[in-house]
Amino acid sequence: MSSHPARDRSVRDIVPRDERYGRLFQQVRIGPKVAANRFWSSPYATGWRMDQIDREAAHRGVRAEGGWAVVNTGEVAFDPHSRNAWLDGLELSGENDARTLVGVVEAVHAYDALAAIELVHLGAAADPKQDRLPALAPSQMQGNGLFFSQAIPKTMDADDIRRVQADWITAARRARDVGFDIVNIHAAHGYLPVQFLTAYHNRRTDGYGGSLANRARFLREILEGVRREIGDDVAIAVRFAIEGHGNGALPADEALEVVRMLDHLVDVWDVAQGGLATTEYDLTPSRLFPEGFSLTWTRRMREATGKPVVGTGRFTDPDLMARAVASGDLDFIGAARPGIADPFLPRKLAAGVYAQVRECIGANHCARSQARGQLGCSQNPTTGEEARRGWHPERLPSPPEPEPSVLVIGAGPAGLEFATTLARRGFSLVHLVDEHDEPGGYLRWFRRLPGFAPWGRVIEHREALLKEFPGATFVPNTRMSVDDVLEYGAEVVVLATGAPWAKIGVSFVDNEPIPGADAALANVATPEQLLDGKALPGKRVVVYDCEGDLTGIALAQWLQQRDYTVEIVTPFGQVAGQADQDNVGPALRAEVIAAGGSLSAATLLVRVCPGHVVLEGEAGVRRSVPADGVVLVIRRESDDELYRELAAVDPARLRANGIGEIHRIGDCVAPASVADTVFDAHRVAREVGSKDPSE
Amino acid sequence: MSSHPARDRSVRDIVPRDERYGRLFQQVRIGPKVAANRFWSSPYATGWRMDQIDREAAHRGVRAEGGWAVVNTGEVAFDPHSRNAWLDGLELSGENDARTLVGVVEAVHAYDALAAIELVHLGAAADPKQDRLPALAPSQMQGNGLFFSQAIPKTMDADDIRRVQADWITAARRARDVGFDIVNIHAAHGYLPVQFLTAYHNRRTDGYGGSLANRARFLREILEGVRREIGDDVAIAVRFAIEGHGNGALPADEALEVVRMLDHLVDVWDVAQGGLATTEYDLTPSRLFPEGFSLTWTRRMREATGKPVVGTGRFTDPDLMARAVASGDLDFIGAARPGIADPFLPRKLAAGVYAQVRECIGANHCARSQARGQLGCSQNPTTGEEARRGWHPERLPSPPEPEPSVLVIGAGPAGLEFATTLARRGFSLVHLVDEHDEPGGYLRWFRRLPGFAPWGRVIEHREALLKEFPGATFVPNTRMSVDDVLEYGAEVVVLATGAPWAKIGVSFVDNEPIPGADAALANVATPEQLLDGKALPGKRVVVYDCEGDLTGIALAQWLQQRDYTVEIVTPFGQVAGQADQDNVGPALRAEVIAAGGSLSAATLLVRVCPGHVVLEGEAGVRRSVPADGVVLVIRRESDDELYRELAAVDPARLRANGIGEIHRIGDCVAPASVADTVFDAHRVAREVGSKDPSE
Repeated sequence: MSSHPARDRSVRDIVPRDERYGRLFQQVRIGPKVAANRFWSSPYATGWRMDQIDREAAHRGVRAEGGWAVVNTGEVAFDPHSRNAWLDGLELSGENDARTLVGVVEAVHAYDALAAIELVHLGAAADPKQDRLPALAPSQMQGNGLFFSQAIPKTMDADDIRRVQADWITAARRARDVGFDIVNIHAAHGYLPVQFLTAYHNRRTDGYGGSLANRARFLREILEGVRREIGDDVAIAVRFAIEGHGNGALPADEALEVVRMLDHLVDVWDVAQGGLATTEYDLTPSRLFPEGFSLTWTRRMREATGKPVVGTGRFTDPDLMARAVASGDLDFIGAARPGIADPFLPRKLAAGVYAQVRECIGANHCARSQARGQLGCSQNPTTGEEARRGWHPERLPSPPEPEPSVLVIGAGPAGLEFATTLARRGFSLVHLVDEHDEPGGYLRWFRRLPGFAPWGRVIEHREALLKEFPGATFVPNTRMSVDDVLEYGAEVVVLATGAPWAKIGVSFVDNEPIPGADAALANVATPEQLLDGKALPGKRVVVYDCEGDLTGIALAQWLQQRDYTVEIVTPFGQVAGQADQDNVGPALRAEVIAAGGSLSAATLLVRVCPGHVVLEGEAGVRRSVPADGVVLVIRRESDDELYRELAAVDPARLRANGIGEIHRIGDCVAPASVADTVFDAHRVAREVGSKDPSE
Repeated sequence: MSSHPARDRSVRDIVPRDERYGRLFQQVRIGPKVAANRFWSSPYATGWRMDQIDREAAHRGVRAEGGWAVVNTGEVAFDPHSRNAWLDGLELSGENDARTLVGVVEAVHAYDALAAIELVHLGAAADPKQDRLPALAPSQMQGNGLFFSQAIPKTMDADDIRRVQADWITAARRARDVGFDIVNIHAAHGYLPVQFLTAYHNRRTDGYGGSLANRARFLREILEGVRREIGDDVAIAVRFAIEGHGNGALPADEALEVVRMLDHLVDVWDVAQGGLATTEYDLTPSRLFPEGFSLTWTRRMREATGKPVVGTGRFTDPDLMARAVASGDLDFIGAARPGIADPFLPRKLAAGVYAQVRECIGANHCARSQARGQLGCSQNPTTGEEARRGWHPERLPSPPEPEPSVLVIGAGPAGLEFATTLARRGFSLVHLVDEHDEPGGYLRWFRRLPGFAPWGRVIEHREALLKEFPGATFVPNTRMSVDDVLEYGAEVVVLATGAPWAKIGVSFVDNEPIPGADAALANVATPEQLLDGKALPGKRVVVYDCEGDLTGIALAQWLQQRDYTVEIVTPFGQVAGQADQDNVGPALRAEVIAAGGSLSAATLLVRVCPGHVVLEGEAGVRRSVPADGVVLVIRRESDDELYRELAAVDPARLRANGIGEIHRIGDCVAPASVADTVFDAHRVAREVGSKDPSE
């Protein structure tokens, strides 16, 4: 039993059922190569090292299996000067590396997809302290973005330039020799070629500085060298931004001029906006960017080239994709995150099973988690587990014989994932019970915060699966006691009761209650209470954020939309600092301030009084701040009461009631991200009835 | 030729020349084992993984060779739930791991030292997202320190407790089986055993919570199990703090009571203060703590035990060490950082070659760099390179025949390290030229900043070497032109001209000059100008810190000592945020505020005017701030002018003047930390005259 939409192995044999989408499955020539369709799996980092190549290969292979005609690697470095401290990655600096990378090529070729390798040099953005080397740059300029290394680079002398260019060209040749079809030269995101192109970084007075032609020379000579070295066997892609953003960016007219200069050397242009100083344009969170956001720039790229153009934009809507192709805005539907969320997106669109598509929610959990060596996804729990656990996104184990009946209590992200995974496995007697009238758990209210509607896709996708796979049934408005559970008649009981926000504010100093910080009072609210309609008195609200992530700042914006004056107070060094990991922190803080709010970092809430609060800043300085109401964003606490009661029931009584297994999943074990919660539910759902539920 | 002070291999055969230090070289019994002397190389993380065990083994082996009678590993985890995201490390979770760790044991035993393994569980401080597991803790409490993971842990149920204890005991048995002499049970630094001990984390109502005896039960059962499992073959050490610090710490009287409870199970107590919430007490920076700071706590430990006691305290003064032993304050001189700075500290003290001791400066570069997989040290450039480059701290290659004459220009950290390394190699014609009347480079003034005097040891140690190895001569008050260099008569010329602070303030927005931010003006100063005596008008000063590290905040304190009112402005999210890596950031910020200063993070300097400056905060909000003077901490810029002029000289002319090699080293290549600068100088100094100067 499987929801696998297509059994053909080759990307060449995919035929769309709906002729409206025929255009998406046309062949496209890329120099000497032919892509079987218009789906281009964009480069993205996974955080795995060369000694984890099996994970990389399996991950990329699933993209090819899912129907992407071109599958890129993430960043591949060829120079130790390009290493950074924040993310492990692949390397191609010798023949050994090349032999290791063969695994990726083979995994992609198994489905007749084209394998592309992204070769990068970070230049001034590198932090190669591991090898005790300086970073290299056209001039000795510090990076200008908060994600930039703060190391001051070495100004490249003529020998440095020649050596890096030669190494880049050699890496391209090695990539060709092991079978890569496309060499994707990374000239975007503020990395070394962009540093040469922009006056911000390039203050050289030699032949590599000054005029635009001189500033483009570093990249031009690399492309000429690659073309010379690899001949016509392999296509050359260039990742490039039209119109930089933020500090020191290349103006659009200069960028287009560079495209015209280099166009004869390039087979396909891969439009990649943003950079280290403006990561929000690269890893565009749904909070800030709509689907298809890059079309503005792919259109401009068209002004300067007749070569195929790749655009990204968190595409999941096939109509939008078809329109973008038909209008000539782009030739390839580039995607990193939508393919992480659903590697089978192309095949599912072709098969017409739209309801089965796990649409990317743009939460950027992938970007957060990659630095930990664990690429995760809020929608797709199999991401990153292709090799490690052998999980396939579409193939699931069949139910055991005899098939047990299952009761799932709590229809939040974990309960929904658990029930729908069992239903996809072919279970036929799964009841998903919730005390509310609709499923979703805390996402029911979280998706109502300003800009978080796309997070609702976690619910919507699984509601659609409940319709498609009738083995699981949602039972609303039902609160279960221990006796209810015992009498329900299910053989497997699964607790997914979540983790509501703490109702009492506690101090970072001693974990004891903060006087007055009690959501039982009229002037104090938890996040759930606020969204459930608890009205705070007056108009001045302090949001006390001990999470340091999205919840506090999103609630502040929700309050601002309702004309409250908001101060966000956090014990951490920066308000919503964790949200910087998915590139929304700076923008959100700016929005709050622009709407009249204020931010107090490194500050403790000491006391809540009627009309004011007492705060303590660094060095123990206390101040009183007027506040009619306080929102407590303290921590989520696992609601494991029912689990503990059940665990205490006499095993004989459980057996007498036919209960063979009791599990708990997701936030009621320990509160975690949507991705980790869904993962935990999926893991247990695969194990139910399995002979070896280890791992 | 070598400055190696002792050729005996066994730590048992070290005999001190000076009887005053005889006490330091007495044998001490540790349960079933006997330590040959009182030097205890404390546990510290290196950041290397199991697949880098050769680096770990070589590093620990050099400690044993250098005379430490006991050599500990750093943290060894035995449970994937204990993993963190910020630092790689060793593991002992199966027989394979045990076999890998044999290399460390053998490297330590080669010198008859005792090998100790530190077994840890981080509990709530872990962030085991790599394996998609929750952290574990006695209760579901968030960590209370800024270095703590912000993940919310799972409350350990009875099965979790039994499983972790059993795994801990099994790990101890495996350690014994591969030859470790001491199992060091980590019950400090706020990790899992401390979480059970403290009410902050432990809100349990079962037999592991409530009374102190109950809270100590988790640790007691582990110690009982380890003793039972490993019998009397192996000694048991416990790392433990008397008197916790900061949030939720165990009070001293309770800590002493725990020692009394567990004393019969323990062979040696390893006093380790501080924790994740109060790292400054663990990695005590010299900026905040004097040498021997832990004696207060080792003395208190004595109140509760008759077993040997280990104390740390950045010990390098043999008289202080001898007094501490004589007074009974401790039995073992524990040291991490002093042994990183000089692994041969014990042998050098025994040999009486005090001037050759590289004294730790307490800058905590080790703590900063370990997370990058490159343990470095400001004083000892061979740290971390024992296996990778095969560098020994005391053995250096002999000079080539014929030996070239060498001119080193610039006597900062790099020039000093270069010249003294050549002298130690046995070169006899090395001239170290500087335009000032004393060596030191920028450290000459940096060491005068409040609390930074210990950094001067980088100079003092090398000045002592210049006296001891007369092959290198310091030539003061000499500024060199190209012609001077050509005529000097040296065959090897080395430029170490450093990197002074930029004299023009530039904007993060476009890298263009900020109006009025020009150190040629009377109201604007660079750090060097300020310390060289440039007096700013008035009493209100803005320090504009684009480095984000120690310089800006140290200058602010220097100004505050001179009665200036200071505001520190930085474009980064936190003032001196990088100084948090070596645990001084929070304390320094608190000191500045307590002295009446103010901090403005995420703020740009837009304009400097007479009497005020214009600043721009998040969301583009501008404000005017009164300021009589401005200190520009923009960036250091390599002074490579002389190098470039020399590089442009006709090679024939160089040859005619007898110059065979020109090198540049340190900050004049790219400004870097003292550690990386000294490393670069040392690398090139090893390569001069070598046949294969690669790596």
